[in-house]
Amino acid sequence: MSRIETSILDGLDETSALRALPESQLQAVADAVRQEMIDAVSVTGGHLGSGLGVVELTVALHHVFETPDDRIVWDVGHQAYPHKILTGRRDRIRTLRQPGGLSGFTKRSESVYDPFGAAHSSTSISAALGMAVARDLDEASAKAKGAPAPRRRNMIAVIGDGSMSAGMAYEAMNNAGALHSRLIVILNDNDMSIAPPVGAMSAYFARLASGGTYRGLRETAKQLGKLLPKAIYQRAAAAEEYARSLVVGGGTMFEEMGFHYVGPVDGHNLDHLLPILKNVRDSDQGPILLHVVTQKGKGYAPAEASADRYHGVVKFDVLSGVQAKAKPNAPAYTRIFGESLIKAADADDKVVAITAAMPGGTGIDLFGKAHPDRTFDVGIAEQHAVTFAGGLATEGYKPFVAIYSTFLQRAYDQVVHDVALQNLAVRFCLDRAGLVGADGATHAGAFDLAYLCCLPNMVVMAASDEAELVHMVATQHAHDSGPIALRYPRGEGVGVDLPERGVPLPIGKGRIVKRPEGARVALLSLGTRLSEALKAADLLETAGIAVSVADARFAKPLDEAMILDLAASHEVLVTLEEGSVGGFGAMVLHLLSEKGALDTGRVRVRTLTLPDTYQDHNSPEAMYAEAGLDADGIVRTVQAALPEQKAGRLRLA
Amino acid sequence: MSRIETSILDGLDETSALRALPESQLQAVADAVRQEMIDAVSVTGGHLGSGLGVVELTVALHHVFETPDDRIVWDVGHQAYPHKILTGRRDRIRTLRQPGGLSGFTKRSESVYDPFGAAHSSTSISAALGMAVARDLDEASAKAKGAPAPRRRNMIAVIGDGSMSAGMAYEAMNNAGALHSRLIVILNDNDMSIAPPVGAMSAYFARLASGGTYRGLRETAKQLGKLLPKAIYQRAAAAEEYARSLVVGGGTMFEEMGFHYVGPVDGHNLDHLLPILKNVRDSDQGPILLHVVTQKGKGYAPAEASADRYHGVVKFDVLSGVQAKAKPNAPAYTRIFGESLIKAADADDKVVAITAAMPGGTGIDLFGKAHPDRTFDVGIAEQHAVTFAGGLATEGYKPFVAIYSTFLQRAYDQVVHDVALQNLAVRFCLDRAGLVGADGATHAGAFDLAYLCCLPNMVVMAASDEAELVHMVATQHAHDSGPIALRYPRGEGVGVDLPERGVPLPIGKGRIVKRPEGARVALLSLGTRLSEALKAADLLETAGIAVSVADARFAKPLDEAMILDLAASHEVLVTLEEGSVGGFGAMVLHLLSEKGALDTGRVRVRTLTLPDTYQDHNSPEAMYAEAGLDADGIVRTVQAALPEQKAGRLRLA
Repeated sequence: MSRIETSILDGLDETSALRALPESQLQAVADAVRQEMIDAVSVTGGHLGSGLGVVELTVALHHVFETPDDRIVWDVGHQAYPHKILTGRRDRIRTLRQPGGLSGFTKRSESVYDPFGAAHSSTSISAALGMAVARDLDEASAKAKGAPAPRRRNMIAVIGDGSMSAGMAYEAMNNAGALHSRLIVILNDNDMSIAPPVGAMSAYFARLASGGTYRGLRETAKQLGKLLPKAIYQRAAAAEEYARSLVVGGGTMFEEMGFHYVGPVDGHNLDHLLPILKNVRDSDQGPILLHVVTQKGKGYAPAEASADRYHGVVKFDVLSGVQAKAKPNAPAYTRIFGESLIKAADADDKVVAITAAMPGGTGIDLFGKAHPDRTFDVGIAEQHAVTFAGGLATEGYKPFVAIYSTFLQRAYDQVVHDVALQNLAVRFCLDRAGLVGADGATHAGAFDLAYLCCLPNMVVMAASDEAELVHMVATQHAHDSGPIALRYPRGEGVGVDLPERGVPLPIGKGRIVKRPEGARVALLSLGTRLSEALKAADLLETAGIAVSVADARFAKPLDEAMILDLAASHEVLVTLEEGSVGGFGAMVLHLLSEKGALDTGRVRVRTLTLPDTYQDHNSPEAMYAEAGLDADGIVRTVQAALPEQKAGRLRLA
Repeated sequence: MSRIETSILDGLDETSALRALPESQLQAVADAVRQEMIDAVSVTGGHLGSGLGVVELTVALHHVFETPDDRIVWDVGHQAYPHKILTGRRDRIRTLRQPGGLSGFTKRSESVYDPFGAAHSSTSISAALGMAVARDLDEASAKAKGAPAPRRRNMIAVIGDGSMSAGMAYEAMNNAGALHSRLIVILNDNDMSIAPPVGAMSAYFARLASGGTYRGLRETAKQLGKLLPKAIYQRAAAAEEYARSLVVGGGTMFEEMGFHYVGPVDGHNLDHLLPILKNVRDSDQGPILLHVVTQKGKGYAPAEASADRYHGVVKFDVLSGVQAKAKPNAPAYTRIFGESLIKAADADDKVVAITAAMPGGTGIDLFGKAHPDRTFDVGIAEQHAVTFAGGLATEGYKPFVAIYSTFLQRAYDQVVHDVALQNLAVRFCLDRAGLVGADGATHAGAFDLAYLCCLPNMVVMAASDEAELVHMVATQHAHDSGPIALRYPRGEGVGVDLPERGVPLPIGKGRIVKRPEGARVALLSLGTRLSEALKAADLLETAGIAVSVADARFAKPLDEAMILDLAASHEVLVTLEEGSVGGFGAMVLHLLSEKGALDTGRVRVRTLTLPDTYQDHNSPEAMYAEAGLDADGIVRTVQAALPEQKAGRLRLA
């Protein structure tokens, strides 16, 4: 891949070189980083707008702080492309999110400049506070031993305003404010997370930011006055400070939580950012919240003009900004889900939809256009989303909570304690179940089958294609006696015809897709591995091995009759699922062992699951092949399990 | 059980009767409720202090609001005993927490007056907001249809100051403030949750509460002025309001989040509570936060004088308050854990301990006395606790995070995304694993094996007795290459000798406890079912069936060699665990099927787990018996699995 030829960035592979540059050159560095980043993402795709918004901030941070000895924890990490460019990864920046290439997020194994990996939001303050406490303990330990004091490292969390809507950020602030540890939290306020922000806090940030346009240097110096008792700003006396807070009302919430609030500061103005960051760095006091206002997509006109500020893009033309959207072969599961839910709501005014700050990713944006009054975006607040749905269910509403499989992990206790235990009819719609590709291990929807199938009262379905998805949304709608979860993958369907309207499926009943005469092998699939199972069956049949294929549909409750029948009538039974151990295959094994179906040795059972590792990002197809969950992998498993294999008689593939 | 003979409470089984009483009699009702409650808990044990603190508030709420049509959601629910006495459960109040008796928390299936069940904290605002939105949708729907407007129900969440430290409460407030829905949140500020509160927010509440002692009626009326534009308080004009907030600085945080802040009010003074609640009820405006200051243990001198305000008590003498502590036969797992961790920390200054507001319940209180500088109580903030530990681990510290099994569900994503995925050496110490008795289904530690064993990098251990616990804490200490979880039950150990010091166990190795000549049956136990397994083995041996017993120690990684050997050399293999399906037994089945150990039918495998239901509270022994996880149940399972059983030849039990 090409690289921009000569650049001020040459030689800036370690941040010490950046710190050696005079401040007068830093805007040029920022301009070059922005150019490099636009050029790189134009060929890789990825997260663009967030990174563009923090270019100056990134340059300023690495210039002012002694990274990597000082730790910068980027919340979520999708804004860290400029950081990657400036921390020795410029030569690989065009491998972002490519197989074998750089991660689209921060990652500890990738660089010493990434002290904490991320991808899910709102973790940065907790992690940085842990680091700050470790530093304080190091200092106390050195002091107790009479050893020289170690360098007082700076711990910096950079967190967006959207991420501040998550309770975890509040928990961390609450703890930090009480511990009085030196910690720097930079609130990167771009008035956007992925979608426009929601919730009362975002309105509060807006009021702060508009409190007096940006604060200039002189005013911010006054704010810092109370942080620097011996400094020249000492004359900013208490009375004046008090007057200021009365006038501006700024930052009171943060101050009540024990933080020193500084800002708002223009995050694109290095002349303001640099001295303020230095003052913050040199302050001796407890946690500081620095409020920096930035513009998502800054410096790239097509991004600035776009509604989502080019949050996530595919490859695009740098001059025009036009994205090279590939023509899909079939509609995406997400869209079909959204459309199916709209139909349910058209016919039933008790249907409501809830998203946790992901309206576009979940199809709830479509629903919101059709039924705005019944659409609730609660912010990055999965815990609240689930229990809020529980409250709606107690009043006779039919809440559909659309949350990615990986993000529902954030509301596990609410699923257990508030919904499943009370047997409330909340519908969980788990998009991005299974492997997700370029977003990598952090976004894999690998564990929901394990963490949901163990719960009493829970019904768990997986769609094997987009027509099944339509029926399963109807099934969720019809199932009003308890919680019911539906999982489906990222990306396009397989291209089957869609039914005019969904028909509720019988709970706990699977379907036999094919069952040829004399079948010796049964493939029992849950979810979209079904197409690979059918391919595998074809391959095996060319070798004379007849194969039955079943779509389990339900991981819980299992279709016991169907599964026991398959086990009783085949020599080999292989379960397939897009999930970890402990899920569907485990439930089948529990059933078969309990019923004595394994006692005779008549059937050999194998459970194909995702591997017991966190797979690096790649195409989903490549990742499933690696997991042995493609047709070839299924064939290999069947071959190894067949009795004649041990005698060396099988000839295939 | 006895009952207080005649009482003003006679005839108050529905709250309509309470509403018919003149206000002048309500203090007498409160006094009687308090007396009834003290008397009842003196014979049942349970949560005392919290309920005593809200007696007047409970009476006032049911007098002012049209319960059950108006919904009161008690956060946690352990303060709801007065509520139960006043809502038709007085005649069963002496069955609290007894087998077949009333739950110690609110429970939907128990009463129409319990609109939402609870036990874990900080869920009430989310649930009540869901109910409020449902009401709003009902109203809009009626209006759109031209139907008469339904009664505008009031939705009230009563939440303690401790519960406010959880992020979930913040997420709900953030959403409520933006939705502008009519919702009443009563902050029950008793400056205590279970332990004294921690975190910056509790300091904030204290400042609010001390802002001008309690507000009197006249002043609170002024606050309410802006809620009641047409009311007599209208003269409390904007200027005056502004002056007030400048002077008191009260409630700014809540107001910034879109709530109307009212208070602080003396929660034991009905003359103040009643008119304020009426005004709040009659207000038309959006969410209101009413700050009520109460005293935990109020009105019972021994409780008021106690440090924990009699948060949770066993049976006690009413006159003296002396609790009838049963003499334990063996030290509790919790204490042995705490003491073992102290020893680890004595020898290694990198050991730190973290609790989420449960220092006493987890043994971290002991640790805190020995090593206060390395003890971190982060508040009811499990999410933050885990990622904070992750941050400490990245800096070379050895964090032990002690959280009940059921509460670690609240930090599942942090376990996955921040710790396991990054392979950070965080030590998870899961107290209360398995069944917990009187606290019931909400507190059962049933799912951790399922939700942890599916995670790559995670090591999962369970202690089979208290000596094993000592060694396993040492194992956690020694294991510095990734996350490692240890589960152990509530209650006393089995009475074995304790080792002087723990010795790290080899990771992924179990132990054969007994393996008699000619053993046909193998019992493979994880955790403290081991003692029942040994009893079962004795029973079976009296019938001439020799039984091997193994302690798996690790649910992940499994001791593959030991398990495959057991499977290869016995006719029946039964796994035992104090957890749900999808956990240890499932991992064993995955292993055996993958290795072909089930292919020949030589061994019959059964997995004994907790049942696929939420078991009602009872003694753990009775619950395990119900689950078939006691010695008799194990024998029954073995009998049914033995080949001769089908031929009717087995004679036993």
